[in-house]
Amino acid sequence: MKIAMLSTGEEVLHGDIVDTNAAWLSSYLYEHGFAMVKRATVGDQLSALTEELLMLSFNNDVVIVNGGLGPTTDDLSSAAAAQAADCKLVLFKEWLQRMEAMYSQRGSKMPESNLKQAMLPESAQIIDNPVGTACGFKMLINDAVFYFTPGVPKEFKVMVEQQILPDLQRDWPNNTAFQCSRLYTFGLSESAISDKLDSLKLPAGYELGYRSYLPFIEVKLFGPQDALEERVRVMQLIYKLLEANVVSVDEPMLEHLGHLLVEKGLTLATAEQCSFGYLTSWLQSDEQISRQSGHSWILSTRDSEAIDHSNPLAATFALAGATREKCATDIALVTGRMEENRFTIALSAHGGEWGMVLEFNRPYGRKEAVKIISAAAADLLRRYLERKPMFGDYFSLKKTKEMFLPSSVVK
Amino acid sequence: MKIAMLSTGEEVLHGDIVDTNAAWLSSYLYEHGFAMVKRATVGDQLSALTEELLMLSFNNDVVIVNGGLGPTTDDLSSAAAAQAADCKLVLFKEWLQRMEAMYSQRGSKMPESNLKQAMLPESAQIIDNPVGTACGFKMLINDAVFYFTPGVPKEFKVMVEQQILPDLQRDWPNNTAFQCSRLYTFGLSESAISDKLDSLKLPAGYELGYRSYLPFIEVKLFGPQDALEERVRVMQLIYKLLEANVVSVDEPMLEHLGHLLVEKGLTLATAEQCSFGYLTSWLQSDEQISRQSGHSWILSTRDSEAIDHSNPLAATFALAGATREKCATDIALVTGRMEENRFTIALSAHGGEWGMVLEFNRPYGRKEAVKIISAAAADLLRRYLERKPMFGDYFSLKKTKEMFLPSSVVK
Repeated sequence: MKIAMLSTGEEVLHGDIVDTNAAWLSSYLYEHGFAMVKRATVGDQLSALTEELLMLSFNNDVVIVNGGLGPTTDDLSSAAAAQAADCKLVLFKEWLQRMEAMYSQRGSKMPESNLKQAMLPESAQIIDNPVGTACGFKMLINDAVFYFTPGVPKEFKVMVEQQILPDLQRDWPNNTAFQCSRLYTFGLSESAISDKLDSLKLPAGYELGYRSYLPFIEVKLFGPQDALEERVRVMQLIYKLLEANVVSVDEPMLEHLGHLLVEKGLTLATAEQCSFGYLTSWLQSDEQISRQSGHSWILSTRDSEAIDHSNPLAATFALAGATREKCATDIALVTGRMEENRFTIALSAHGGEWGMVLEFNRPYGRKEAVKIISAAAADLLRRYLERKPMFGDYFSLKKTKEMFLPSSVVK
Repeated sequence: MKIAMLSTGEEVLHGDIVDTNAAWLSSYLYEHGFAMVKRATVGDQLSALTEELLMLSFNNDVVIVNGGLGPTTDDLSSAAAAQAADCKLVLFKEWLQRMEAMYSQRGSKMPESNLKQAMLPESAQIIDNPVGTACGFKMLINDAVFYFTPGVPKEFKVMVEQQILPDLQRDWPNNTAFQCSRLYTFGLSESAISDKLDSLKLPAGYELGYRSYLPFIEVKLFGPQDALEERVRVMQLIYKLLEANVVSVDEPMLEHLGHLLVEKGLTLATAEQCSFGYLTSWLQSDEQISRQSGHSWILSTRDSEAIDHSNPLAATFALAGATREKCATDIALVTGRMEENRFTIALSAHGGEWGMVLEFNRPYGRKEAVKIISAAAADLLRRYLERKPMFGDYFSLKKTKEMFLPSSVVK
């Protein structure tokens, strides 16, 4: 079974919009066992659209077309579909009534221009759009099944999830869907992960995938849907091999930290020097972490230059202790000052204070550096909450010093 | 002249990577007058690759192929190119020597597997890669010129900028390049912008484009490269029509704010309640703003619940004044607490205190809401620094209250 996608529109073709619908659809279908064989993108010219629809109809069983269903004159997907299938555009009264109802619910009259959105190829079957005026539709062009979908990401996703995937699963019942399990790692390169997993013999029907969002790499295990026990067993093997750098399983690190904080009923304050507010903003983008947070502060670059930094780790420990005391939280997590390519991170909690001096192995831009520093700090928090060894080893970061001061010494 | 792009690789096809190279290339070429007519994406199968190369060769004058030049066995672009052009893969000694030199400079020996990267189609001409081991190459397939380029974004961009674009400009000298000027707006919808610009009669050869990065919309004016005066005149007309919502010209808002702060020698502190650190982190992602920043703090959600919020604007004014005093900066910018869908922002400076209560017109997710709140706060700062009217009107935000307290009253 061959499935392809066509993205339409000048704004996608000319790079004004990154085609996230395409990446999302490919990934979503792949996880459900429908691996896409080709994607194409063309602009808004009727001839180019029609030509591409025909080409795709010859080489594929299913084609999903995205975009070009709006009310304006440059939305031409329906017209191209009619031309490619050699049929007429006709008024679909049921959709016209739906649009009129949507407008009257909002207390306004449907503009004339929306009429166009109810003009569909004669042979089309409507696919409902519960959240917008552009209905989708399904039709044959030559022997291929085409699904036409709106470009607005929210409308597109709802339509694929609620209608197109179930339709595909009905039409292709022998397609075996994968189930996907995930691990999130920090501090390994993709090639290091692949080397570590090299010894692993996956059972038949299993496959590994990687996706990197700096500074994390997600390891995905695809396996048959009905073999839960076996997948759990394989996941445990993978976990063992990567354990030193696994930050969470089946949920991103941030959610995992939020769950841990709530579960243990602990509160957190942060103070930042070399991460300029990114650590706090990133942590608090999780609502659970935000609710467990005390005051946090971002030190000014100028003030921190005045502090004596002859012993950067001591200064960062002092900052962590002071933050925890001032903010009256259970834990304080801080980033110290950047000196050349070296920075410090520290955590202060009931049992004592832990800190590290880390050094970048290669130059990073400010944006990337701040993300890596924040992830390293968050990893210190994770290790504390999980009662794991506190000092990790990270690819791309050289550890030049690590130190633990038990509470008895701190006092 | 018809130009197309082919992206290759399972990771792009299956959505593990969003194809940012494609968006970048389309946009870059478009700005230089080469509008792409089609993009395609296929995986790593030799047959699918070869088939697509042939198809593209029939319908285009120039095709840029991205990816598949690495040393591993799933990198098959060179093999597919040779098959499509019906020629052999041969060893290009000059590239082999280059790779060996790269490795010996780093003090190591070239791995065997890299040899593959010097095996190119017989008829290919090498395109230098100054930053990696994958050289690009140029060759004819049927009558179309093909450029093969590496998938690593940095290597790809250098090659396009330094070699492929100049090559295209040499081969297609009659192509008229555009020059692009930009305006950044906050608080208008794309359709509102297009309505406002509707009355504008663009001279022949000019074109408008929009790009939205929530919550900003960038308005781009493309015009002939050599007509500077005319473009300035058209830009002024556009500026007039959108003035109330233009936040910067030819640079993003953040850079503009950084320049203004440095130029005026003013320092800034921030305090946040409903924006959870995003405002500070976003502002300080600009190095100039970061250097002009005093301490900033993120209030805890729990503490802020204890404050009396019967008059939210008064509470936010108090926070702004206290922040400015404590941090000893020229300006303090703060976000107050969120109450249902209402929030407050305020700025305290030498002349007094300005504040607004704003209300979301529709529900937003936490991530989007925080961006919009921060942009509204930053717009208060911009208006202060530019000596513009302090209270803006924003689509998607209803202003329920605005207030100015001159310093004399504050004291």
